[in-house]
Amino acid sequence: MPVNPNAAIEITAFRWVPEFARGVVRDLRARWALEEAGLDYKVQLLGQDRPEEYLCEQPFNQVPILREGDLQIFESGAIVQYIGEKSEALLPRDERERFRAIQWTYAALNSVEPAILNLLLIDIFYKGEEWATLRRPGAEDFVKLKLKRVSDWLSDKQWLEGDRFTIGDLVMTTVFRFLRHTDLVSSIPNLAAYLKRAEARPAFQRALADQLAAFAANQPQPEPEGAAA
Amino acid sequence: MPVNPNAAIEITAFRWVPEFARGVVRDLRARWALEEAGLDYKVQLLGQDRPEEYLCEQPFNQVPILREGDLQIFESGAIVQYIGEKSEALLPRDERERFRAIQWTYAALNSVEPAILNLLLIDIFYKGEEWATLRRPGAEDFVKLKLKRVSDWLSDKQWLEGDRFTIGDLVMTTVFRFLRHTDLVSSIPNLAAYLKRAEARPAFQRALADQLAAFAANQPQPEPEGAAA
Repeated sequence: MPVNPNAAIEITAFRWVPEFARGVVRDLRARWALEEAGLDYKVQLLGQDRPEEYLCEQPFNQVPILREGDLQIFESGAIVQYIGEKSEALLPRDERERFRAIQWTYAALNSVEPAILNLLLIDIFYKGEEWATLRRPGAEDFVKLKLKRVSDWLSDKQWLEGDRFTIGDLVMTTVFRFLRHTDLVSSIPNLAAYLKRAEARPAFQRALADQLAAFAANQPQPEPEGAAA
Repeated sequence: MPVNPNAAIEITAFRWVPEFARGVVRDLRARWALEEAGLDYKVQLLGQDRPEEYLCEQPFNQVPILREGDLQIFESGAIVQYIGEKSEALLPRDERERFRAIQWTYAALNSVEPAILNLLLIDIFYKGEEWATLRRPGAEDFVKLKLKRVSDWLSDKQWLEGDRFTIGDLVMTTVFRFLRHTDLVSSIPNLAAYLKRAEARPAFQRALADQLAAFAANQPQPEPEGAAA
């Protein structure tokens, strides 16, 4: 298993998150890519109390960062592409195929994820607010349109560009996972099968297990009764 | 001027768009990058009546696509990165610096643009709708937070990574342009100066002029009076 305290590559992740975020925090993308590439990594676990200096490495105060030697990069898309350049298992070497994969990585993050995260925010963070109730039908329709576009493109192909899994599929399927509280993906047969195919990969299974293991090990203890007294 | 009907590189753009979209349609990013790189390109202009086959090249039905030989790629982020790989003027060759630039390209498109486009939609497309009125203050606060993060990072640097303009700056500043109907960028001195510095580049000026020239040349004719009779 590639989590190795002596590894040259380090990523940051959260020590613990609430239920709705488990299995979707974006260090999952970095972990999965590293597993596919067969690269060892270590993890710096962070709490919600991360120090001000973290902003010098991650201006948006998010996870993950990837550190290797004097290189530090943030943004899961860039990190996954960086790992892809180390492993043909994730990013083809042929220029045309390489940019087809990179294009899908950007598409997942810019043409699909914003619509999906918007719906997730409405359903989780802003649930019950008047604007969210009024906006939800339109926001859901927009997600459905995006999913139809991907479904039409995918058709009966195994992966977005055919027979070969790439960083584009890795990021697209992690984007789809933000909809697991709905049937929007599961009700579209080819997308549901595509997501299942991705999640069945041993590298994904190990990445997910390692993210969840940290949360289980760092479950906050309930305050003892009367502790405030 | 790099618009050349015999060029090897072709991009797609819109023939005409309404006022609010002029100077921000995303082919601007491709044009600007091509100008910075000194590469000739030709343009296929498309209307809102684009053929069903366009979806086979651009599953989300947007512009731009870039075509060169047997390569076709969509997503402005991927296109700009592709052009960057042809020109050190946009993307450093050193691996560390290269990925710092790529990271900012992803950051602009995934950590900044969604908040800004959300506000643009509220102000332009959904103006007057009850949910939009209720949501606007929160949406604006979220944009302000994102801008503060970039402003704090930029500090007194010329470009995001120091003295050198990269694809990350190109994409970030085109994202900021979506806020030109507000004072959200112009009221933050270092971001306002950063945007001005980017827009003053001759390559940007040529790219903008060429996008606008197509709209001016293809202005729809008003229906002659009584045409419906």
